[in-house]
Amino acid sequence: MADERSRGVTITEIARVAGVSVPTVSRVVNGRADVAPGTRERIEELLREHGYRKRLPRPDGPAGSGLVDLVFNDLDSPWAVEIIRGVEDVAHAAGNGVVVSAIHRRTSSARQWLDNVSARATDGVIIVTSELAPSVHADLRRIHVPAVVVDPAGLPPLDVPTIGATNWAGGLSATQHLVGLGHRRIGFVTGPMQVLCSRARLDGYRAGLESAGVAVDPALVRDGDFYQDSGFRAGEELLDLADPPTAVFASSDQMAFGVYEAVRRRGLRVPEDVSVVGFDDLALAAWASPPLTTVRQPLAEMGALAARTVLGLARGEQADNPRVELATELVVRESTAPPRG
Amino acid sequence: MADERSRGVTITEIARVAGVSVPTVSRVVNGRADVAPGTRERIEELLREHGYRKRLPRPDGPAGSGLVDLVFNDLDSPWAVEIIRGVEDVAHAAGNGVVVSAIHRRTSSARQWLDNVSARATDGVIIVTSELAPSVHADLRRIHVPAVVVDPAGLPPLDVPTIGATNWAGGLSATQHLVGLGHRRIGFVTGPMQVLCSRARLDGYRAGLESAGVAVDPALVRDGDFYQDSGFRAGEELLDLADPPTAVFASSDQMAFGVYEAVRRRGLRVPEDVSVVGFDDLALAAWASPPLTTVRQPLAEMGALAARTVLGLARGEQADNPRVELATELVVRESTAPPRG
Repeated sequence: MADERSRGVTITEIARVAGVSVPTVSRVVNGRADVAPGTRERIEELLREHGYRKRLPRPDGPAGSGLVDLVFNDLDSPWAVEIIRGVEDVAHAAGNGVVVSAIHRRTSSARQWLDNVSARATDGVIIVTSELAPSVHADLRRIHVPAVVVDPAGLPPLDVPTIGATNWAGGLSATQHLVGLGHRRIGFVTGPMQVLCSRARLDGYRAGLESAGVAVDPALVRDGDFYQDSGFRAGEELLDLADPPTAVFASSDQMAFGVYEAVRRRGLRVPEDVSVVGFDDLALAAWASPPLTTVRQPLAEMGALAARTVLGLARGEQADNPRVELATELVVRESTAPPRG
Repeated sequence: MADERSRGVTITEIARVAGVSVPTVSRVVNGRADVAPGTRERIEELLREHGYRKRLPRPDGPAGSGLVDLVFNDLDSPWAVEIIRGVEDVAHAAGNGVVVSAIHRRTSSARQWLDNVSARATDGVIIVTSELAPSVHADLRRIHVPAVVVDPAGLPPLDVPTIGATNWAGGLSATQHLVGLGHRRIGFVTGPMQVLCSRARLDGYRAGLESAGVAVDPALVRDGDFYQDSGFRAGEELLDLADPPTAVFASSDQMAFGVYEAVRRRGLRVPEDVSVVGFDDLALAAWASPPLTTVRQPLAEMGALAARTVLGLARGEQADNPRVELATELVVRESTAPPRG
């Protein structure tokens, strides 16, 4: 372990002495081009003077920082806290700290985050949703940091273990529930169609109708983007139809709440006039009025499995299965009832 | 900086070689009693052999790990993510990672968390709500880790900088809003009364009534605990009164959603039959149906200020003000209207 004893001074300390940011020192350490020559020279001098040695990857042992990085595009979603809880449970039990970051979909922010990941020698990275540029995955490989993607959005990169949920089966079970109550005109609000899980949920909805011998009416399928506003607009469009649906299946809970609001604005009621089903089972689904029937994604379990997987990779193990989908489950509450009539 | 160069081997590495957990090594390093003698001896031998030196506190400089710890009782609240976002914004900009933990109100978990904080030499700790035992604060002082409490619950420990919100003023403004709409019978649902912010909100409600010349009717004040169920029960009790209120002010958004459900169950409507006001302004307040009028606590700003404060303390600065209350603000949406006729 002699090589580690000489690691000593940290990038943070060098940055303080040099009067520059940690990412700047990290860029010099990692041989990146985007540092002014004078600054680079000064930092290199300090690195030599203080005997800094770059941390070497040790694929045969634990990485040793006791940290796991968990990165989101944005920390603006109520499901973020459910994933954090799952990751934290497992990491905490293994003595690891969970470093939570948001990269705000900005390339510059992703680059700084990579520098920070490099500087703190994290044991592994859990990326939530896969909107990070492919170059980020290449960079992580270059600095020998294992990565796992938790991907409720369902667009996995090609060479990284991914943990998702059974979106198609969830779409099917929600639709079968509504058909079983007697609904035949069932509206559907999609997620963003560039995201695979949106297609899977839509296909599950279609399969649920077709297996019951109900034809799919394209007029009942409306575009959404997972956010509340789009559910509200889709709900208004559906209720404006000459032959409106008696039930609406929104492919996120937030959009289902938008449908609630479209129903309320017309003086109608959920579920007496319109049944509504969501997708996710956020904590707030149970607090809605009426409590929302929805397809549960096991977000905390997905986070926990991601933590176990990335800690295993950090120990040099292989992921058992690079593509895992955990089961979704229909949770029936009070927003669904037989159609009037 | 010679003292830091010899820091070298980490507790994590020693734990791996010794075949014990990181917290166990940390306990030995910190001279704690709860380690079996044989294990202690073996670990002490390894620490000597590998030249481990305990990290020395450096009150005059940055602590240097580049990490800030953010600890919650539980990661079960939708407001957790808002505080995380505020802390992460500031810490990220300063090149620091944010380690998020939950201690689950268990003493054993708090102890392990302290060991982990010690092992990763965090620069500072942000504690959300103050239900941690006073001994935790003593332990943090002992290992020279600065702490700040973000305390929407309002029960500050005596000697730690605390960041809260103006709960009394929030209670006042919500009540004045309802009085201004013409309401005279206004129900109130309290938070847990052992928590100071609950008392401040209740006192603001009373002040709002009294300043309008409306007598406080104790029958209109009902106990809650901030969770949805208690708001539902309180709402039912209030609607059962012979002379029920025309408006209900619940001192958390979650309880306001419970009141919504009590109103819905009777076939009544918000706001046509009963106006409802919440407290917090969680993201979901805007998604509720109808969108909820509520008192906004600036949770992200509270997190951001906590991060700035603790990073300042880590640099050896004094907190400008050990007790900061950020302003609350009434956000009027669609759940409030004049009382019926």
